[in-house]
Amino acid sequence: MSFPTDLEIAQQAPIKHIREIAEKIGIARDDLEYYGKYKAKIPLSYLKEDKIKKAKLILVTAINPTPAGEGKTTVSVGLCDGLNKIGENALAVLREPSLGPVFGIKGGAAGGGYAQVIPMVDINLHFTGDFAAIEKANNLLSALIDNNLQSKSRSLGLDPRTITWKRVMDMNDRALRHIVVGIGGAQSGIPREEGFNITPASEVMAILCLSKDFKDLKERLGNIFIGYTWSKKPVYARDLNAQGAMAILLRDAIKPNLVQTLEGNPAILHGGPFANIAQGTNTIIATKMGLSLADYVVTEAGFGADLGAEKFLHIKCHYGDLKPDAYVIVATVRALRYHGGAVLKAQYDVADLQSVQKGMANLLKHIENARKLGLQPIVAINHFASDSQEELQFIEEACAAVGVRALVADEFTQGGEGMKDLAREVVRCAKECGNDFKPLYSVEDSLEHKIETIAKEIYGAEGVNYSQKAKTQLKTIEELGFDKLPVCMAKTQKSLSDDEKKIGRPENFKVTVREFEFAAGAGFIIPILGDMMRMPGLPAIPAAELMDIDDFGVITGLS
Amino acid sequence: MSFPTDLEIAQQAPIKHIREIAEKIGIARDDLEYYGKYKAKIPLSYLKEDKIKKAKLILVTAINPTPAGEGKTTVSVGLCDGLNKIGENALAVLREPSLGPVFGIKGGAAGGGYAQVIPMVDINLHFTGDFAAIEKANNLLSALIDNNLQSKSRSLGLDPRTITWKRVMDMNDRALRHIVVGIGGAQSGIPREEGFNITPASEVMAILCLSKDFKDLKERLGNIFIGYTWSKKPVYARDLNAQGAMAILLRDAIKPNLVQTLEGNPAILHGGPFANIAQGTNTIIATKMGLSLADYVVTEAGFGADLGAEKFLHIKCHYGDLKPDAYVIVATVRALRYHGGAVLKAQYDVADLQSVQKGMANLLKHIENARKLGLQPIVAINHFASDSQEELQFIEEACAAVGVRALVADEFTQGGEGMKDLAREVVRCAKECGNDFKPLYSVEDSLEHKIETIAKEIYGAEGVNYSQKAKTQLKTIEELGFDKLPVCMAKTQKSLSDDEKKIGRPENFKVTVREFEFAAGAGFIIPILGDMMRMPGLPAIPAAELMDIDDFGVITGLS
Repeated sequence: MSFPTDLEIAQQAPIKHIREIAEKIGIARDDLEYYGKYKAKIPLSYLKEDKIKKAKLILVTAINPTPAGEGKTTVSVGLCDGLNKIGENALAVLREPSLGPVFGIKGGAAGGGYAQVIPMVDINLHFTGDFAAIEKANNLLSALIDNNLQSKSRSLGLDPRTITWKRVMDMNDRALRHIVVGIGGAQSGIPREEGFNITPASEVMAILCLSKDFKDLKERLGNIFIGYTWSKKPVYARDLNAQGAMAILLRDAIKPNLVQTLEGNPAILHGGPFANIAQGTNTIIATKMGLSLADYVVTEAGFGADLGAEKFLHIKCHYGDLKPDAYVIVATVRALRYHGGAVLKAQYDVADLQSVQKGMANLLKHIENARKLGLQPIVAINHFASDSQEELQFIEEACAAVGVRALVADEFTQGGEGMKDLAREVVRCAKECGNDFKPLYSVEDSLEHKIETIAKEIYGAEGVNYSQKAKTQLKTIEELGFDKLPVCMAKTQKSLSDDEKKIGRPENFKVTVREFEFAAGAGFIIPILGDMMRMPGLPAIPAAELMDIDDFGVITGLS
Repeated sequence: MSFPTDLEIAQQAPIKHIREIAEKIGIARDDLEYYGKYKAKIPLSYLKEDKIKKAKLILVTAINPTPAGEGKTTVSVGLCDGLNKIGENALAVLREPSLGPVFGIKGGAAGGGYAQVIPMVDINLHFTGDFAAIEKANNLLSALIDNNLQSKSRSLGLDPRTITWKRVMDMNDRALRHIVVGIGGAQSGIPREEGFNITPASEVMAILCLSKDFKDLKERLGNIFIGYTWSKKPVYARDLNAQGAMAILLRDAIKPNLVQTLEGNPAILHGGPFANIAQGTNTIIATKMGLSLADYVVTEAGFGADLGAEKFLHIKCHYGDLKPDAYVIVATVRALRYHGGAVLKAQYDVADLQSVQKGMANLLKHIENARKLGLQPIVAINHFASDSQEELQFIEEACAAVGVRALVADEFTQGGEGMKDLAREVVRCAKECGNDFKPLYSVEDSLEHKIETIAKEIYGAEGVNYSQKAKTQLKTIEELGFDKLPVCMAKTQKSLSDDEKKIGRPENFKVTVREFEFAAGAGFIIPILGDMMRMPGLPAIPAAELMDIDDFGVITGLS
């Protein structure tokens, strides 16, 4: 009998009414805003500053992943279940998945195996409508922009060639990447180049995830940069009075969503920004809500620690006044094989101690980095069937040699039961390791200094090159007064460097900033170090073609 | 003190938990799928065929409206409240409003004055996500089409110039009317002309509103016509295996939404197709759900009776096996003034008996039409402050002269209390009038015969002209085998004719079919008799600019 699919496991799981989950964490059932029986929004009144300071925040990050990913989400969900299994009051706080990829290659997922959040189908489809709301807020601003271009009496004099704000749609749809809008005559707008990004790439998503409350949300929305007037003056969303209506559209989306793990433990899913051109982690409000409701909050940051954790710490912790109390680096034996030179799937999927030994350098660099940031890491070896005892033992010993505990995480096949050891170590470290995050840079530093610091300290680069375009943009950013914002590095997740072929622990390299973008509303500058995909396409055989729903509403083909 | 705005009335109304509303109509509280405290989806298991046949269906329609509309929705809501006030078990079943226009001129609305459905803000924003789901299902098909154009190995050989399927967005956004997609090189699709319609104009909306169950839904989705291959063969959504995934996206949208009137009576809002290029009335499932749960269901059809009621009867009743038991024509004194020649707002807003006497011809024609369809109408004079006693008396007498009762409807300022007389008459007529709808045409008739029948019998035209283009399309429709479908006339709502300047009861005119469209999935042919707007624009000062939300989530500027 083969191992069941994620959808099969999710559909067969006994699921509790969400009010039971809420009661576990002290939410009165009548305070919840239900979305069906298994999803609910938590009112913002449950945010408690005193409780936030006392609860423990556990950040789950990873080494540089293989293309398939190393299972941060399953480890996070499993760790939450493991913590509950050893008697702690723990809650997972994670991102909401994007709808677009569901119809492409991936099918659906919210964790995997026996470490999932449910109801799986709902979470992968419209969930509680947050992405749709973000999409609408984003596209309302676009409609207001084009309407202003069309306006005679109230024109801001926007130069359409300079508009950087794009529409979004939560769909893998490559034909929308580059389009021309406003054709068809005088009644139908001003022709201009435009494009759609996928919704997680919307700055509105990044903003929602960094906002503290409605006031902060409106201020950030108003600060969105749109483009320049013909006389080269910057234009912001506030110049169109867009922020009020955009915030109205986000009235419910700002509230965190409560669901449950397969083991009936609470999980909050809220927000899902891209991990390359944005911060790649759930909302600040959700993290604080989790800390208000539980003693331990397990959360994750997208991609490897060089991107996800770095941004989590320098952007999210900066704006949210947060500090992790424990820091878990997920590694897999197969990814270490990959970093040791076994780069083809057929190679890294079979035991290969030598490659693991060589690839260990990648994990060791991430351990070093953690310590530079004031954090003592724990390594979670996310277990796969192909792992050999020798390989696992080597990793444990190599970690021990640098004073770090590495523990096997077996959440995929065993759920929380396979995570008890890791959970105990996390509890110990959260209390005893003395973690005290110290940023590597101050936002007041120059932009070049901030970028150089990350490149040298985190990536291990010797320095930073700037393209001619980037040099010019540096000046513009200073002129606009945005150089004192945190930076949100956009580079490949596959390598510590900006070249995905440089596996392991690359040395003697420089990274190149090709160009800059800035998210004036969200509040960060984006140095672009590679080609960033903002709108995926569908594959030759889209997953959508294999999906069906029967007369009783039962869905097949979602995984 | 001025009369409060709709939003003020709605926000000040005491609102009951939706479970209390559900209990009134026999829905167990645990069977509801809650969306917050004041909205819920009703599971399809509450559809009861035996009950549907016994309950009374009341169709609210209208004379040809002034540009401001004559208040069918307020009359429908008020009539539901009035019926409950006289001790009947009644429920309103209406359309969901579209989000796009909220940010344009209209602000929000779901009824008006003291005849509204609430929660008003929710209903006007994302509500329960139905429109977002329809949008996604529509746009998934678009993505699959463009993906197939890009495909080498699995190409259907679609000729991109023939594709009639468009993307949709629920936004007033004129710059999206005519666009070019797929530019930017070989990785980003095949360049082609494209456009966005507003979501209510999506054929997926029309399909959802005519589907009986998931099986029917999938079949209709699969039947959507996309375009032709290079070798001129028709291509349907089923050729892309799109219907399963599209139906999955509509899994929750297919379930009717329960809300309440200001007076705490149940109302179902479900679906909202355009009234010109589509059928303009809520889902068949919602109407049947209403009939399953109450003794009286008040529903409405968009625009005047020449469009809305005609389509309700020939399309919705045809597919849904429904017949109205009472038929209410909403007239206003101001609209009769308008039809009598007082065409400017400054004219039709003041008492003017002579114009009313002249304009009465419009109402009399709609009364005649009802009788042709086997229905005995009741006239509801939707009361405005400017109505004079003489005018009201004239209308009542003129109706009495043709054997029809006309009653003043005072729901806007008085709610159900102002609707008791009308409610009593509706109850009487539903039992005693012997209403027995007989279609004017059989779907098996030729397409020309069906169109001619509607034009002559309902509009009062002498005949139908066809443009050269329409004549060619007639042949195509026959070749494709779609000529045995009902017709969905698309013409101006302002006149019984196809010329909006022909007020009153036009005579000696012909109508012209300029072209045809067909909705092979929804199941109707659309003869186009004028310019049909499918994507509105924003006005010079969009309502969005005046909207705000405070720190407690309280919204202003929505009406």
